[in-house]
Amino acid sequence: MYTTSKERMTEKITAFSKFGALEGGGITRLSLSAPALEARAEFKRRTEALGLTVVSDDIGNIYATLPGSDPDAKRIVVGSHADSVRSGGNYDGIYGVLSGLEVIETVVTDKIPHRHPLTVMIWTNEEGARFEPAMMSSGIVLGKFEKEKMLAVKETGGQTTFGEALRSSGWVGDAKNRLNKEEYLAYFEPHIEQGPVLEEQDLEIGVVGGVVGMVNYDIILDGVASHAGTTPQTYRKDALRAASKVITDLWEQLGAIDPELVFTMGEIFCKPNIHTIVPAQIKFSLDARHRDMGILDKVVSVIKGLPTEVLGCTLYYDEHWGRKTIEFDAQLLDFVEGATKELGYTYKRMYSGAGHDAQYVSELLPAVMIFIPSKDGLSHTTVEYSTPEQTWHGANVLLNAVLKADSAL
Amino acid sequence: MYTTSKERMTEKITAFSKFGALEGGGITRLSLSAPALEARAEFKRRTEALGLTVVSDDIGNIYATLPGSDPDAKRIVVGSHADSVRSGGNYDGIYGVLSGLEVIETVVTDKIPHRHPLTVMIWTNEEGARFEPAMMSSGIVLGKFEKEKMLAVKETGGQTTFGEALRSSGWVGDAKNRLNKEEYLAYFEPHIEQGPVLEEQDLEIGVVGGVVGMVNYDIILDGVASHAGTTPQTYRKDALRAASKVITDLWEQLGAIDPELVFTMGEIFCKPNIHTIVPAQIKFSLDARHRDMGILDKVVSVIKGLPTEVLGCTLYYDEHWGRKTIEFDAQLLDFVEGATKELGYTYKRMYSGAGHDAQYVSELLPAVMIFIPSKDGLSHTTVEYSTPEQTWHGANVLLNAVLKADSAL
Repeated sequence: MYTTSKERMTEKITAFSKFGALEGGGITRLSLSAPALEARAEFKRRTEALGLTVVSDDIGNIYATLPGSDPDAKRIVVGSHADSVRSGGNYDGIYGVLSGLEVIETVVTDKIPHRHPLTVMIWTNEEGARFEPAMMSSGIVLGKFEKEKMLAVKETGGQTTFGEALRSSGWVGDAKNRLNKEEYLAYFEPHIEQGPVLEEQDLEIGVVGGVVGMVNYDIILDGVASHAGTTPQTYRKDALRAASKVITDLWEQLGAIDPELVFTMGEIFCKPNIHTIVPAQIKFSLDARHRDMGILDKVVSVIKGLPTEVLGCTLYYDEHWGRKTIEFDAQLLDFVEGATKELGYTYKRMYSGAGHDAQYVSELLPAVMIFIPSKDGLSHTTVEYSTPEQTWHGANVLLNAVLKADSAL
Repeated sequence: MYTTSKERMTEKITAFSKFGALEGGGITRLSLSAPALEARAEFKRRTEALGLTVVSDDIGNIYATLPGSDPDAKRIVVGSHADSVRSGGNYDGIYGVLSGLEVIETVVTDKIPHRHPLTVMIWTNEEGARFEPAMMSSGIVLGKFEKEKMLAVKETGGQTTFGEALRSSGWVGDAKNRLNKEEYLAYFEPHIEQGPVLEEQDLEIGVVGGVVGMVNYDIILDGVASHAGTTPQTYRKDALRAASKVITDLWEQLGAIDPELVFTMGEIFCKPNIHTIVPAQIKFSLDARHRDMGILDKVVSVIKGLPTEVLGCTLYYDEHWGRKTIEFDAQLLDFVEGATKELGYTYKRMYSGAGHDAQYVSELLPAVMIFIPSKDGLSHTTVEYSTPEQTWHGANVLLNAVLKADSAL
């Protein structure tokens, strides 16, 4: 087994934490902002210093490639993103880039033989925090979003378009450099878990089998607005009372379906939302995720089976977008699991509840993800943290899984 | 028994419905706005035509007085307001003014003998829809609000102050004209019920014993924000789930206290209110009203007895303003009840759940209110409605109650 350098891995995290650093910790490094461009420049400097060739494609995705021994072999690529949400942390996204960089630095420094070229890449605008939607560039490459429409997207709360930010970044390259199946063989994306499971179960690695499927609904209750002082309780049609009952019932019914089902009622809107008026309408969101689409069908059945009248109020729902479960590549999963076992790390096979660029890439190339623990399960916050040991273990798994792919494919 | 004219009563409602009329029905007649000034001018024209003397005080309250046979007797006054909320109806407030006007017109026309002078008055800015707070002018007269502070209040969504609007209205009179106990004897305020009780119980008149007491709280649940996709249900501290349980429990516990207790959770705020994030905080309002302060003490006990932890979330509360129950004058109540009985109208003794100028006046003079039914219990809406029969019955009760006061006091 090969191992990366724990010291170098930690130094990389520390070095990149400066770009967009906030007083008190964490970063704001919105896509294509000044600190994001500093991070890109540092990535270019470090990869070129290691002898890698750096190119970008027409939407600013960066690819840094180390040649292999076989000039005809396809590339193995490690990718993630370098942008953050507002008041984000030092691990989400950038850890995937830096563990890929550490793997290649190890290969270069330790002169590890490999047949395939090895690429480490940065996706532009994964978070969607400055330019919506999230996973914009992998979505463009995979034909999920129209490029022209995306270039016209204005930044949230401002006037600059994604296209303008891209042009002034200096990172617009050739469209033929886009990730493609003619030149690339396999895609790895290490990431922090962003949830509490690995930490709670005292495990070191998540071998990520895919991204869970998802359904999204709005559930609406229509009552009747009336005066808080003059309407006896028995005459009321109170939408908040009815919604409270429905939310409680949904927790019970959905909670009984499967222990791995996650469901969230994260948004609630009340009309007219005045303390002296009985609520006339409540609308709340329901987001449910599971890797087994059969389980999500059960969720949909529960929603469709909700009574149309609750405590005098009318219940109805709007279905929003969903996604089918994404299954990652079985062979790459075996490489990741094999490497983890051989390194002696504890692990579990799991699914990602959050979306990642890997889910789009998996439609183009064999793809897989590797998770490391997140302290207290926290992400998208300045206190996001994984220990030096954890970031190093993830890099070691990545290194050996990549080398297994290099040998086998 | 004397009776007013149903035709004249209906004509008055129709005539004043023009001032601020909205296409499709209802009115917007914000305090001291152009349509409110038109209504005041029409009131002055009509009262002067009947031989009344019209004066105003320093905050634009208008008093129109018909002399009685005894020059030394104190005045009996009927009052309410002529302003409306935005998209309000043709009855709230103005019905009290116009039924008073109809009573005096009947006294004049039918030459009904009376010892006391009879006054009908308009309070400035009862609704508080343009200048907060509600019941501003009766509040100033009773020392609840400082006049200078009120004059400086800017209109909601604009720059004009109450003082500026008052000066340009032409209705600023002498402070010595304010309602006072040296010159006035008793106060009557007819009003629509603004609730469904009289209509549902098929009653014609509400003999209003007072204004119910009230407590106001915010109840807050603190959970922990976490990712909708990556946080298993068992790890969650979901503030909306907890709030739903508390709201359901409160309906059960408060609903068991007393059938006449009204309580409302009308406002709810969620943080961060994003559909992919578990709610970190829910804050909701609780407004509870009852004429028996002992019942409200039980409400407070229920709130103070709420558990401090609910489904992993921390519960706490903020107490806001409240008011003690206002009891109207027992003798005036007997006059109203006696008049109602003699007229053969069905009625009930009840309390007002909403606030009215009468509640402040009751601290200065013996005061009482008379309710007539509101169609479907609706008020503060363009479809607010009471039938010509109902408005006439209310005026008849008012006339005979005033005459009883005139004889007895």
